[in-house]
Amino acid sequence: MKDPNEIQKKLFAGDRRALAKAITLIESQKEEDKNLADLILKGALPKSGKSLRIGISGIPGVGKSSFIEVLGLKLIEKGYKVAVLAVDPSSPVSGGSILGDKTRMEELSQSPNAFIRPSPTTGSLGGVANQTRESIYLCEAAGYDLILVETVGVGQSEYQVASMVDLFMVLMVPNAGDELQGIKKGIIELADFLIINKADGDTKVLAENAKSTYQNALQIIKKEKFWSPRVLTCSSLEKAGFEEIFDAIDDFRKLASKDNRLSLIRKNQTHSWLTHLFHQSLTQSIKKNNLLNDRFSKVESRVVEGKLTAREGAIEMINELKRSFITKS
Amino acid sequence: MKDPNEIQKKLFAGDRRALAKAITLIESQKEEDKNLADLILKGALPKSGKSLRIGISGIPGVGKSSFIEVLGLKLIEKGYKVAVLAVDPSSPVSGGSILGDKTRMEELSQSPNAFIRPSPTTGSLGGVANQTRESIYLCEAAGYDLILVETVGVGQSEYQVASMVDLFMVLMVPNAGDELQGIKKGIIELADFLIINKADGDTKVLAENAKSTYQNALQIIKKEKFWSPRVLTCSSLEKAGFEEIFDAIDDFRKLASKDNRLSLIRKNQTHSWLTHLFHQSLTQSIKKNNLLNDRFSKVESRVVEGKLTAREGAIEMINELKRSFITKS
Repeated sequence: MKDPNEIQKKLFAGDRRALAKAITLIESQKEEDKNLADLILKGALPKSGKSLRIGISGIPGVGKSSFIEVLGLKLIEKGYKVAVLAVDPSSPVSGGSILGDKTRMEELSQSPNAFIRPSPTTGSLGGVANQTRESIYLCEAAGYDLILVETVGVGQSEYQVASMVDLFMVLMVPNAGDELQGIKKGIIELADFLIINKADGDTKVLAENAKSTYQNALQIIKKEKFWSPRVLTCSSLEKAGFEEIFDAIDDFRKLASKDNRLSLIRKNQTHSWLTHLFHQSLTQSIKKNNLLNDRFSKVESRVVEGKLTAREGAIEMINELKRSFITKS
Repeated sequence: MKDPNEIQKKLFAGDRRALAKAITLIESQKEEDKNLADLILKGALPKSGKSLRIGISGIPGVGKSSFIEVLGLKLIEKGYKVAVLAVDPSSPVSGGSILGDKTRMEELSQSPNAFIRPSPTTGSLGGVANQTRESIYLCEAAGYDLILVETVGVGQSEYQVASMVDLFMVLMVPNAGDELQGIKKGIIELADFLIINKADGDTKVLAENAKSTYQNALQIIKKEKFWSPRVLTCSSLEKAGFEEIFDAIDDFRKLASKDNRLSLIRKNQTHSWLTHLFHQSLTQSIKKNNLLNDRFSKVESRVVEGKLTAREGAIEMINELKRSFITKS
């Protein structure tokens, strides 16, 4: 199946195999596949944008997979179609996952109203994030109402995922120690929902305590968004607390759809993403131009040797770029 | 004191007021000050590069300030001059620090061989990080042997600081819960030293346990650097463990100076930084060009409206850029 019209038609009809195939094309490194992917994506764009995009983050061990399994089944029970994507890039340093204890969502994956796609295993974080962003559009065009984007709790991937979703959830576990130590300043400000998992058995009381500690901490934050972060507890084990999470998602959706709020957020996200892709494409086309690449290297050497400040070097590079464009015409 | 030659001369002689003044110029938003700063920086560059640059990260509550106070005094006792800089940008969301419980380093700040500079309070993370990078060069030109760059444990600032130092330390506290939950996958791979603070009193045994847990976890990581991350414990309260930390820093310095390793790392860092500044300058010059800015906005609108994919939009923007340079000549 390599005919883009065929794939697109089936994808619009909600065919999961066609959706999976289209995402595979997006993740492919082959030029031919990328061109097909672009065709399919372009057709899908006008049909995209109707879902609620939810990011789910949390450090390893917090129980993200079982949380997503229970949440996904709850959403399906409410009549929605749910897609699960993941951004879990190989580490840039070691090339592999340290804690790769990914247990997949068994029950959810068997539902006809769920689509689960593991993270691409190759490529840089930026590349993986780009692919996930495009996959979101494809899932939307295939009729999924909620897109859950899972990320491992690593600084950069959290920011990447937060920049492609509408609602960002941070999963936590109750901690015996000083609760506030578990909150990273940057993360608490990304989070729309802080969800304390494992509110069951021995840790139920701890979870409730954690909830009030977090709620107090959240009051310190100056609000500039329409939504005040909400703290919730749940137990994936006992499937408890998910009705409340569903209600909170619904509240968020209602508020977000007022006054074009969501469309404004998405507009800003698209703007940043486009700027990023522009810089990336520019870098690639500079690398392909031998003369220019050579001149850039010379500026770099002078900066490295301390003969130019980096700021001066950057300005020289812009002048070189201008000169190269002018010469070529 | 606004004469750059005067400031530079005093700075090279190790005058702390001149150093402080030069950093203030770097942090200034005024064009006039920036130009002065550039002159001073350019003069300082050939005299820079001789220190060991150490990043110190850790979430709020881990005791970074008292750790730096004790470490700084130990380094001075060993005969070195120590500068402390900080990257703690205002949050991009709320514009303020949540847990701004910064206690300053009282004893260290009174030593004639220490220079302590708090984080700039305005500007984006990128801007603050640029200023800190330039401040490192100035401190080196002023004769400081060790530059400690402190950062709050937020994803993005950790990566920024790691990209400007030679040795990256992550401070932790012993945790009663599952130790591995405290390690963020990305961070453990940035860390050259994992230092478990508060190895005293009730938490001493916990700290030792944490040490072996981390050491085991670290063995899983594939090594591509000349240095294997080392796990150490200390107590800032009891000033214990700092002789061992000093020895480890010394080991790192010896290994790093072999085979041009350090100079290679710094070269790569400078390269990335220059690329970043180039993109930043390009963005600024596009914004200043009304016609081009307008055309970019039109591409953006079409991408936002789903009429173009972001990738197509990026390519159109590059073509617009070329056209604008050619027209102007």
